[in-house]
Amino acid sequence: MDREKEKAARRLLSEKRFSELIALLVSLPDADAADLISSLPESDKALTFRLLGKDAAAAVFACLDADTQESIIRGMGDAELSGLIEELFTDDAVDMLEEMPAGIVSRVLRLATKETRNTLNLIMQYPEDSAAGIMTSEFIVLKEKMKVSEAIDYIRATGADKETVYVAYATDVKRRLIGIVDLRDLLFAPGDKTVGEIMDPDVVSVTTLTDREATAAVISKYDLLAVPVVDGESRLVGIVTVDDAIDVIRDEASEDISIMAGVTPGEKPYLKTGVMRTFASRIPWLLLMMVSATFTGLIITHFESALASLVALTAFIPMLMDTGGNSGSQASVTVIRALSLGDISPQDILKVIFKEFRVSLLCGLSLSAACFLKVMLVDMLILGTEGVTLAVAAVVSLTLGTTVVCAKLSGAALPLLAKKIGLDPALVASPAITTTVDIVSLIIYFTIAGIILGI
Amino acid sequence: MDREKEKAARRLLSEKRFSELIALLVSLPDADAADLISSLPESDKALTFRLLGKDAAAAVFACLDADTQESIIRGMGDAELSGLIEELFTDDAVDMLEEMPAGIVSRVLRLATKETRNTLNLIMQYPEDSAAGIMTSEFIVLKEKMKVSEAIDYIRATGADKETVYVAYATDVKRRLIGIVDLRDLLFAPGDKTVGEIMDPDVVSVTTLTDREATAAVISKYDLLAVPVVDGESRLVGIVTVDDAIDVIRDEASEDISIMAGVTPGEKPYLKTGVMRTFASRIPWLLLMMVSATFTGLIITHFESALASLVALTAFIPMLMDTGGNSGSQASVTVIRALSLGDISPQDILKVIFKEFRVSLLCGLSLSAACFLKVMLVDMLILGTEGVTLAVAAVVSLTLGTTVVCAKLSGAALPLLAKKIGLDPALVASPAITTTVDIVSLIIYFTIAGIILGI
Repeated sequence: MDREKEKAARRLLSEKRFSELIALLVSLPDADAADLISSLPESDKALTFRLLGKDAAAAVFACLDADTQESIIRGMGDAELSGLIEELFTDDAVDMLEEMPAGIVSRVLRLATKETRNTLNLIMQYPEDSAAGIMTSEFIVLKEKMKVSEAIDYIRATGADKETVYVAYATDVKRRLIGIVDLRDLLFAPGDKTVGEIMDPDVVSVTTLTDREATAAVISKYDLLAVPVVDGESRLVGIVTVDDAIDVIRDEASEDISIMAGVTPGEKPYLKTGVMRTFASRIPWLLLMMVSATFTGLIITHFESALASLVALTAFIPMLMDTGGNSGSQASVTVIRALSLGDISPQDILKVIFKEFRVSLLCGLSLSAACFLKVMLVDMLILGTEGVTLAVAAVVSLTLGTTVVCAKLSGAALPLLAKKIGLDPALVASPAITTTVDIVSLIIYFTIAGIILGI
Repeated sequence: MDREKEKAARRLLSEKRFSELIALLVSLPDADAADLISSLPESDKALTFRLLGKDAAAAVFACLDADTQESIIRGMGDAELSGLIEELFTDDAVDMLEEMPAGIVSRVLRLATKETRNTLNLIMQYPEDSAAGIMTSEFIVLKEKMKVSEAIDYIRATGADKETVYVAYATDVKRRLIGIVDLRDLLFAPGDKTVGEIMDPDVVSVTTLTDREATAAVISKYDLLAVPVVDGESRLVGIVTVDDAIDVIRDEASEDISIMAGVTPGEKPYLKTGVMRTFASRIPWLLLMMVSATFTGLIITHFESALASLVALTAFIPMLMDTGGNSGSQASVTVIRALSLGDISPQDILKVIFKEFRVSLLCGLSLSAACFLKVMLVDMLILGTEGVTLAVAAVVSLTLGTTVVCAKLSGAALPLLAKKIGLDPALVASPAITTTVDIVSLIIYFTIAGIILGI
């Protein structure tokens, strides 16, 4: 958003040069006009928004953040608000309602026409993360018997308030989806052919309860502009357009990234999320991690005498735990992302384990060798650290190698098992893997130390 | 991809029932036909592909993975290959060439028409991750003076081999971009109006060198079907369509996720990446981490006498390092994602630090308190671990609190500083933050222990 234009808008506002301000707003793309309005002082937002014409108002409104939407609605009269609701596409109206407090939701539904109210209520019954939860009901339906020229005239006549005119759907008398027609095909076909003759009967569709992430994946895989949504009886009830698919893909990636770092995903951008909410999204995992880390403490206490007799062993504990943890999360993060993109599924667990096993052997051997050399050359010869012997170097290196193998195997397996039992695999990422690997690596360490060093 | 259809295809192939196989392929969406061909034995891929008609062939070819594309090209005669190249959209042709060995690239360029060769060479000069690197050159150009009815006829006549007919661009005599026209607007406008009258002169565009991630963000922000790409002289040279934007968004999210876990990003899906390549993508970070973790070892050796006098202190080291590391990566991952989405920029560093400081105080106090209670109740009273006293509980809790604050501050600041000096902020994620926090937490631990316990 151009800061120049922001300043210009504020100046025009304060000087009450409204027609110039309207011209400025109209020259901007909807998303930029929305940014501009959001950046104004609270008291000016509603006023500026209401300068927009009816069509532009709905489009810009859909781009506003929830807080600005709320303050604008509060500043609107009933007639104006009811006009806005009718202009909004249903998916944008539903998005807005999902963020509003109950008082505003009931006011909006009260002011909506019966038809709109029924549509909104229907969509809001579905889970927010389903295809039906993000679909819109403004799409074009054509009849099989229509001629191409009639279809184009029909689109001309009715298309102005449809979410998209570039894809149309053919249904039978029971509203069941039977074919899809691109506007492109209508344009290039002879006017006297029928819709039934040029439509594609092999329609890619999703159901009302299809996960929204799967819906976005369908749009992405087949390069669609929109995907039709059908109910349990194959009736066409809505469409999900590509712009919503992009938002889903971004949001889901952000969610996965948050969960993998042990943060409860948030809804708002970083700087708009308050301190208390940010604290609340992070402290659960930290407490959980702190508690589970006590097990590592118990293990160390158990082997206290071993450590006391050879304090040099302590120095390598952080390195073993860190390297083990990193190895594990390399595997888990990779597998979780592959699951998310649909590149693998829980059935592939054996292939994945077999692959990770070979990778972990290579990593384990390389790290073991590097570690052995480093301990011998640096700790023993150069630094001359007390207590570091060839045997100690062997213990540390063997532990490292074994730890890396265990870490990668568990890092790869746990997300797949989580998915199989219906958990979000992203939950089994860094924090969980790290703790598991820490415990395992310490047990291995002291066991090998006991065998080789006899402590 | 339907396993039933895969089996059916293999059966039809083995029984040489080619016309039925063609019918099956034609009934599938392009991406599914591509999946099916990719799943066939090597020797059957080229044969099956060549059953497709010319138009379908190009569309399906664009969906194939690089290995299958290569084996099909190797199996094609010159005439057929040259036909395929002309049918492919330039962005798909460029994508393919970027994955092919040099021999195939020169063969393809040799067989292309002069015009196509020049276009391909032009695009391949640009960086792969720029807008120009992913643009296509098949778009519709209209003249200002054209009437709407003429424009529609023109689109009918020339649109068949354009990437999209739903957006058209108006240029002046010097090919400079002056306006944009949606097909929707052409359809709804009276036939005698001119393009100049209905076009939108406020065009959202990107330049040839705009980062592809920024390009995808533009398409996403403004809900575009395509964004025009202009060169240094404002001449329209190509367009990037929304389907490519989605691929960019997914790829960039995957890249960030990989880098944040200390894995060099790969190009191919998980199961298609070989063991050696996977090993090579992970070992650099692991070696780096192992080396930097030696510093923690040095610190521990330095304070060896303190540990020897109070072995109980050792038991808390893993918990302190883990919690510190998790706190740090919660902050760094959140900040890196916010940077990536454009929610914050390096200029916001003070706002971010201030926010993270308050969050870290809350987290630090909560964890400190929980830790103190836990050490007192569990370690001291219930387990009766030797050496654990009120003073030790105080040392551990104070260290934990201070560590969490330092961890979150550095976790938030380092990615922003990295971005400011031109590094990829994702590089400064978990592995780097963890090591930094480990070193800091150990120094704090022994310092506080020295003060309170006098060791």
